[in-house]
Amino acid sequence: MRVIISSGGTVEKIDEVRGISNFATGSLGCLTAEAYLEAGHEVIYLSAPQAKRPESHNSLKIIDITNVDSLIKAMQAEVPRADVIIHSMAVSDYRPVFMTDLESLPADFPVQKLTELQVKQEKKTASSAEQQIILLEKTPKVIKLIKNWNPKAILVAFKLLVGVSQEELLTVAKAKRDEAQADFILANDLEQISKDQHQAWLIDKSDQMTKLQTKAEIAQALVAQTEEALHG
Amino acid sequence: MRVIISSGGTVEKIDEVRGISNFATGSLGCLTAEAYLEAGHEVIYLSAPQAKRPESHNSLKIIDITNVDSLIKAMQAEVPRADVIIHSMAVSDYRPVFMTDLESLPADFPVQKLTELQVKQEKKTASSAEQQIILLEKTPKVIKLIKNWNPKAILVAFKLLVGVSQEELLTVAKAKRDEAQADFILANDLEQISKDQHQAWLIDKSDQMTKLQTKAEIAQALVAQTEEALHG
Repeated sequence: MRVIISSGGTVEKIDEVRGISNFATGSLGCLTAEAYLEAGHEVIYLSAPQAKRPESHNSLKIIDITNVDSLIKAMQAEVPRADVIIHSMAVSDYRPVFMTDLESLPADFPVQKLTELQVKQEKKTASSAEQQIILLEKTPKVIKLIKNWNPKAILVAFKLLVGVSQEELLTVAKAKRDEAQADFILANDLEQISKDQHQAWLIDKSDQMTKLQTKAEIAQALVAQTEEALHG
Repeated sequence: MRVIISSGGTVEKIDEVRGISNFATGSLGCLTAEAYLEAGHEVIYLSAPQAKRPESHNSLKIIDITNVDSLIKAMQAEVPRADVIIHSMAVSDYRPVFMTDLESLPADFPVQKLTELQVKQEKKTASSAEQQIILLEKTPKVIKLIKNWNPKAILVAFKLLVGVSQEELLTVAKAKRDEAQADFILANDLEQISKDQHQAWLIDKSDQMTKLQTKAEIAQALVAQTEEALHG
């Protein structure tokens, strides 16, 4: 199989020296890539700036990703030829439009008008102001585009929440699976993830759930269940 | 000598899954640490999350830094016993107070009132709003605290600008040196830094300047000039 794995967290620049980062080590994506390679598959690894990367391998291609735009470009090029897409990357929901001194704005300036403001972005914002504000805009939802580019590919989406009940996690995850037309969703909670443990549920289209306890178990389950889904 | 080297870029959390990062690889800090170790000195390496780190060594202690608060804590503990402080870390000037939906605020809400707003921060901000805003507050200037903790230590400050004239760079750098009561400042421009080149000026208290072309040259000059400054 030809497998795309996106891994790590995107970074959206504020200026040339700072940005908004999504925290993700890429450890799970890296282990998953190794498991697919081990099983004899071809892997296209979309690697965010700080993501862990697998050792080089004949069947491995690594593509560097920075922000959401670069992710879309890579996915659009690679998804049509892929059999399986494991979209585990933590992607920025919002990206900066501008950053500006709060005190540079008139006292009665209405907050809703910020969207109409033309702010010339500096290469490096230097300021002595006590406060700054950043206006952010929503980014395109990459996960929802994938099935348009390749309806036959097996798509695995991921949902990470923080400190919610199991019921809420599973409900939110299933809704995301359906919205993205994904074949599977991996549901996990940051508070159930530590160095040696990674509690997760792998849920398929018919709500069949597999409970998993470690990154290695997750990687193995992804390989087995996507092979099964593709070849029947 | 006992040498503190801060390296890499700090991260200030927005919530549990995202933050504002300062881009810095820690390559120069790492090379500098290796040069001091090589010259027989003791190194305390304050390492930001993604910074490159030297190989372990008998005379090396590594302390993990996340945000400005953790940097202050480590500096306050280590600076009184240090002979030299090389503060090359890219430190966040601002940190998030809150992030909120723009559309959750009243239409005529004045932007200056944002500072009075009480926003309950989510563990993970989930939203479908088209725009969000982040309010940021200034962080304490760590570089200005160092000489208070140890007036006798040799302090090297760093100034990075982006795409300015040499004249502007040197003027801004000298002003920062004086404000921080630093013994040296390393002035550099991001547009003059690439993989194989790192143009910089090392300026001492009497405006003597050494022009440097690579990270290795910078590291060697730092060792030589701080040894000279301490021992005369």
